[in-house]
Amino acid sequence: MRIGFIGLGAMGAPMAERLVAAGHAVHGFDMRPAAVQALAAQGGHAANSAREAAAGADLLWLMVVNGEQAEGVLFGDAAAAASLPKGALVVAACTQAPAQASALAARVAAAGLVMLDAPVSGGVAGAKAAALTIMCSAPDAAFAAARPVFEALAKRIFHVGAEAGLGSTAKMINQLLCGVHIAAAAEAMHVAERAGVPLATMHEIISVSAGNSWMWGDRGPRMMQDDPPVTSAVDIFVKDLGIVLDQGKRVHQGLPLASAAMQMFLAASGLGHGAADDSQVIRAYRAMNGKGAK
Amino acid sequence: MRIGFIGLGAMGAPMAERLVAAGHAVHGFDMRPAAVQALAAQGGHAANSAREAAAGADLLWLMVVNGEQAEGVLFGDAAAAASLPKGALVVAACTQAPAQASALAARVAAAGLVMLDAPVSGGVAGAKAAALTIMCSAPDAAFAAARPVFEALAKRIFHVGAEAGLGSTAKMINQLLCGVHIAAAAEAMHVAERAGVPLATMHEIISVSAGNSWMWGDRGPRMMQDDPPVTSAVDIFVKDLGIVLDQGKRVHQGLPLASAAMQMFLAASGLGHGAADDSQVIRAYRAMNGKGAK
Repeated sequence: MRIGFIGLGAMGAPMAERLVAAGHAVHGFDMRPAAVQALAAQGGHAANSAREAAAGADLLWLMVVNGEQAEGVLFGDAAAAASLPKGALVVAACTQAPAQASALAARVAAAGLVMLDAPVSGGVAGAKAAALTIMCSAPDAAFAAARPVFEALAKRIFHVGAEAGLGSTAKMINQLLCGVHIAAAAEAMHVAERAGVPLATMHEIISVSAGNSWMWGDRGPRMMQDDPPVTSAVDIFVKDLGIVLDQGKRVHQGLPLASAAMQMFLAASGLGHGAADDSQVIRAYRAMNGKGAK
Repeated sequence: MRIGFIGLGAMGAPMAERLVAAGHAVHGFDMRPAAVQALAAQGGHAANSAREAAAGADLLWLMVVNGEQAEGVLFGDAAAAASLPKGALVVAACTQAPAQASALAARVAAAGLVMLDAPVSGGVAGAKAAALTIMCSAPDAAFAAARPVFEALAKRIFHVGAEAGLGSTAKMINQLLCGVHIAAAAEAMHVAERAGVPLATMHEIISVSAGNSWMWGDRGPRMMQDDPPVTSAVDIFVKDLGIVLDQGKRVHQGLPLASAAMQMFLAASGLGHGAADDSQVIRAYRAMNGKGAK
């Protein structure tokens, strides 16, 4: 398959290389020429623009930061949509709001193309190992056509439905749970530290109890550190829970737990910790309630 | 060891039998004579009162419903404390508020006895399989003395500290996380159902994603059922999150996520679903936001 690939960053670069390795003709573009040359060195094709990458492609993969960038690549100065053949597939793999995915799909359809709303999770590690999770909504035929490409990149591929927006909703729901679980872990750790329960013991107890979560296992140890390495920043959850709550507002759906978690991430960011590891949302609890013993 | 065992219910009965099997002389009492006879049939000793079960015991195990019952057994009409030898161990294995455990321990100490604040988790299944988790705070010597008894019942034994209240705090923190995670799962499921994401697909996606929790795996499937079997009722979390928030009030510690979760369990109970399975907290979301499509 001839694939245009836009966005050769930390995730995009290894993904594009996987597609080359799977035998596809991958025409890659990124704002950084070095990233484009690196793909060419791996057997891909260097494109000088998004428009050039898209020209004649069966499928255009958009591995950009957000929905605004995806729309800009397709319909802005780059105008990549105009160089795609009619009926080509456009995979919007970025994280964006469901409403934004729906609007973008409508615009893509009006241009005679088919959008797949297909956010991914699994991070850089998942991209390198071809072990991503893809949550895709798209018409059946488009999903079937894109499946070989998905299979070169992902360990788990979910077809969430036909309508654009459903894939992004699934991803958004995962972010809702991630954000609430990190804040809940911080709340729990904060109760333990104020009460004088040794945190390492507390972490071990929960890890084998019904209160366990993936985030407790991953972020919990970093909550016990004063200045842990940043794997994902507080402000990422300000953004992601912001998407959740904006969507809730759009459809008039109250989300009390997401809202409470958002306030804690906002407070942590407002205290100056927006760039700190998201485990440090616990600092907002300490600021609010004190660190002292009961 | 000579053990008095009070409370031969769904959890207590298999636990007392395990202690018999481990070679201890177990004198059991329960308000229901049939439960006492069942223990005797397994090689235990039938006691006619809590006081008789406690007489001459090295260790008295209180497997009652809450702290009030534990105090009643020891110092109420039953007056079991009075028949225990000086220096005997009293294991308060019930779920109670940290402050209640501290107060009870002080009263037990004043009677010349040593209390171990040792709530358990693992439920009936864990009790039957001798696979409970015990979160115990007690002075080192008392913990060491009770350890053989703990080992007959539990797969995981944690010594949380010396001071009474810490064991109950650890258990309370687990309940905080359980309650928040169930409500968060309901919030997430409710977003999915309103948006039209197929719930079985959503469940599978989260089960392999960073948003996963033990509760999502356990309660999630029952959220997809209209009237699932009751494994634990909504009102249990009204009680358990009530303990969490009462403790927060006592020490002036704001707990926004526990509080938000509590409101949803309270609403579900107020809607008449207090006896329903706790997964049905999702009904409060439906009542609040509607079930319809976006």
